[in-house]
Amino acid sequence: MFSKKSGVFLSVITSKDNPSVKLYMKLSSSKKERKNLSMYVLEGYRLITDAIKENSLVRQIFFTEDAYEKYSGSLSQVDLKEVKTLIISNELGIKISCTEKPQGVFAICSIPPEKNLKSSLKSDGRYVVLHQLQDPGNLGMIIRTADAVGIDGIILSQCCELYSPKVIRSTMGSAFRMNIFDGCDIDSVFSCFKEKGISSYAAVIDKDAEDLRTCSFNGGSAVLIGNEGNGLPVQVADKCTQKVTIKMTGHINSLNAAMAAGIIMWEMTNK
Amino acid sequence: MFSKKSGVFLSVITSKDNPSVKLYMKLSSSKKERKNLSMYVLEGYRLITDAIKENSLVRQIFFTEDAYEKYSGSLSQVDLKEVKTLIISNELGIKISCTEKPQGVFAICSIPPEKNLKSSLKSDGRYVVLHQLQDPGNLGMIIRTADAVGIDGIILSQCCELYSPKVIRSTMGSAFRMNIFDGCDIDSVFSCFKEKGISSYAAVIDKDAEDLRTCSFNGGSAVLIGNEGNGLPVQVADKCTQKVTIKMTGHINSLNAAMAAGIIMWEMTNK
Repeated sequence: MFSKKSGVFLSVITSKDNPSVKLYMKLSSSKKERKNLSMYVLEGYRLITDAIKENSLVRQIFFTEDAYEKYSGSLSQVDLKEVKTLIISNELGIKISCTEKPQGVFAICSIPPEKNLKSSLKSDGRYVVLHQLQDPGNLGMIIRTADAVGIDGIILSQCCELYSPKVIRSTMGSAFRMNIFDGCDIDSVFSCFKEKGISSYAAVIDKDAEDLRTCSFNGGSAVLIGNEGNGLPVQVADKCTQKVTIKMTGHINSLNAAMAAGIIMWEMTNK
Repeated sequence: MFSKKSGVFLSVITSKDNPSVKLYMKLSSSKKERKNLSMYVLEGYRLITDAIKENSLVRQIFFTEDAYEKYSGSLSQVDLKEVKTLIISNELGIKISCTEKPQGVFAICSIPPEKNLKSSLKSDGRYVVLHQLQDPGNLGMIIRTADAVGIDGIILSQCCELYSPKVIRSTMGSAFRMNIFDGCDIDSVFSCFKEKGISSYAAVIDKDAEDLRTCSFNGGSAVLIGNEGNGLPVQVADKCTQKVTIKMTGHINSLNAAMAAGIIMWEMTNK
């Protein structure tokens, strides 16, 4: 099957058995495949242009026939030299999409090599450490908020998978811009902080901890946020320079983990 | 089929065709049915005990056989006089559940009558108005955060459905505690504010709007949050006493709507 688009005849892939399409589907559905192949997928025009703009390692782009007509013109302006472009049928686009109203633009990217935490940390930087955070929507929202308020880096330790389609989608492009250190060992994180003179603040629900309102976050600071249900393990909180709490005046004393992280990051970057 | 529990023989419902089970399933899946019958559903032990504790109008409770064994003892301490209790088979519990790991406790509740906004507003209160907010997760998170920071009431105008299972679940019980005014007309809201001397603050992305950091929120105040994609309509923002913006120092100038609402509520209740 061939399609004439922009004056060029391009072959249109209609089968799920095409090797690139098969690869996309495997990466879209399987954490194990993403890990083994060190690749992940993106869906949606805006997310993919953000990835290209931020020099993410985009390897293949798929357009449905309709989407090629609509979007390929604006994408050709950016450097797509190393990106393999494929046209798929509109029907196949619906099959491989994870959204209700697919735009028909899909990409396969390489997971970037891990960054060295020690050499990247700035001694006057503001950081967030997420330890055992499990909800993809929360992780995405924290990355997006960190990007907005101007946090210098996000350190992940035993969290849910950064490159799952749900996390990447909910960061709204911030995953490509933010300085993210994935898969860190929590003890090594504390060593790096010590070496750089960065103070660590454990976010806890504890009336004896320092009130977020009065906490000064002088110099390099990192706030640690724990798991949605259990918070930070005691032994991790105890290793921090200080404990900080969001004193609340309402009927309950807990917030969603992403909301708690957002309010603390807001206060941290306001001092 | 009969089951001996706590010394009493109770008949165990095994069929989806049981009228109560059919009602539960209709209410669980259909917004139209919830609206027509003015009822909604709850799932999970914690959520249901919260509903009972806050005097929500719980009409029927379903336990699976296993859940009855585990939970019914603690529930009998509270007033269940007017609540019809049914036992369903474990298999049926899996069928009607919306969660991956069902606890086996379900309830049907009546939607409470609408509250009168004008007579409930306090002239020194702190309120949040959500206008055209569409994401159930965002609505739930805002209600939970409002309950934690001590907001006096949430006013909903043209939002997604409050009584959908997803919204109710994500409020973590705060929907039963918070003062929520559903289905309000935005013009009537402004009239009520005027009458009570409550100042209204439109949350906008606009560098000329007042910086949230310096905004004093003196006296009765209400912040207005708009739709996830489009924000507040200009004509609604223009009707407000003032416009307020979250000035951000990072790479992007937008936050998720729930996060923006959370940060503003945090600042409002801190002044």
